[in-house]
Amino acid sequence: MNHIELEKVLPEEIEARSFELITEELGDTPLIPGTEAIVKRCIHTSADFDYAQNLVFTENAVERALNALKNGASIVTDTQMGKAGISKKTLAQYGGEVYCFMSDEDVAQTAKEQGTTRAAASMDKAAALDKNLIFAVGNAPTALVRLYELVQEGKLKPELIIAVPVGFVNVVQSKELILDLEEIPSIVAKGRKGGSNIAACICNALLYML
Amino acid sequence: MNHIELEKVLPEEIEARSFELITEELGDTPLIPGTEAIVKRCIHTSADFDYAQNLVFTENAVERALNALKNGASIVTDTQMGKAGISKKTLAQYGGEVYCFMSDEDVAQTAKEQGTTRAAASMDKAAALDKNLIFAVGNAPTALVRLYELVQEGKLKPELIIAVPVGFVNVVQSKELILDLEEIPSIVAKGRKGGSNIAACICNALLYML
Repeated sequence: MNHIELEKVLPEEIEARSFELITEELGDTPLIPGTEAIVKRCIHTSADFDYAQNLVFTENAVERALNALKNGASIVTDTQMGKAGISKKTLAQYGGEVYCFMSDEDVAQTAKEQGTTRAAASMDKAAALDKNLIFAVGNAPTALVRLYELVQEGKLKPELIIAVPVGFVNVVQSKELILDLEEIPSIVAKGRKGGSNIAACICNALLYML
Repeated sequence: MNHIELEKVLPEEIEARSFELITEELGDTPLIPGTEAIVKRCIHTSADFDYAQNLVFTENAVERALNALKNGASIVTDTQMGKAGISKKTLAQYGGEVYCFMSDEDVAQTAKEQGTTRAAASMDKAAALDKNLIFAVGNAPTALVRLYELVQEGKLKPELIIAVPVGFVNVVQSKELILDLEEIPSIVAKGRKGGSNIAACICNALLYML
């Protein structure tokens, strides 16, 4: 081809080889038992080893999330990208589906009326569903702030909150709020990093563990 | 609320405030004139300042991409997430649309028959379109390798290649291959980092510059 040498790896082996390399490179980095598959998948999705340090899991969060998914919990995301990235086939096998209300006309209307973001308004719409829900927030800190309020007001009891918005305004704080909710299991990327890709990838890591 | 203090920013001002913070934090970091909006949007999407260092633009790549978009070029991505993230409304105003062939039955079939990846097979399907195309590859190095081959074989002449797959197997090399294509404008995230989110964000940065 030219002077650039490609590693010979069969298509079906690329992912396994990637995880091997991640494991090698992590070396002795301590990971919480039972969370390794999730942390490594976040690194796989981002090539960013910061996720070995910044992911926080509340007690039994993974176990409780897996139970919820097994029992048909659905997932609510704050972006269409997150929704696109989640393995909807695997989720459907257990009876769950993925919701994203960000493009809904009524959500845009509510947000405008209340002077809030569509992300926050879409959490209200999700809270009105009569379902067991996992929230996967990869973009909007305002969604997390609204989730915090809904839980505090007794209007919502999520099975899990994946709190991984990315960014610069209230991102760090909104994640801390979620960690303050002692009754609600959460997986949080502390600091500024995260994203819709990370939100989807944590959902998929959980689904692949089933 | 509790001891955690949220910054007061109106919903419509969050993005501008984020870009202010990014600009502040970049300080004197040198950016190539004309590429600032793209680099900053990648940092906005990832909270990762590495993108100030690792993004490479071939000569006039941005200018040529903007011209292509103005003239109705379409975008081909290698993930549904990338497709979900691109501002399809803005693109449509200029006559373009977004294609992702990854879930197509015929692509899966071709990949199986040829022992290649669906990503590579989907590049062949794109090359058969009689259209001006920008490729936004955020996931699969095999897609970039196939694009390289198609260009070398004279079967494809993209308007731009956004080469930002993320990962560990042949990711670094596949990006170098694209930079070797002297005739084809490209925007490349050197190294392992990138992703569907970065691919979509570069497309959007270009669309917002129009």
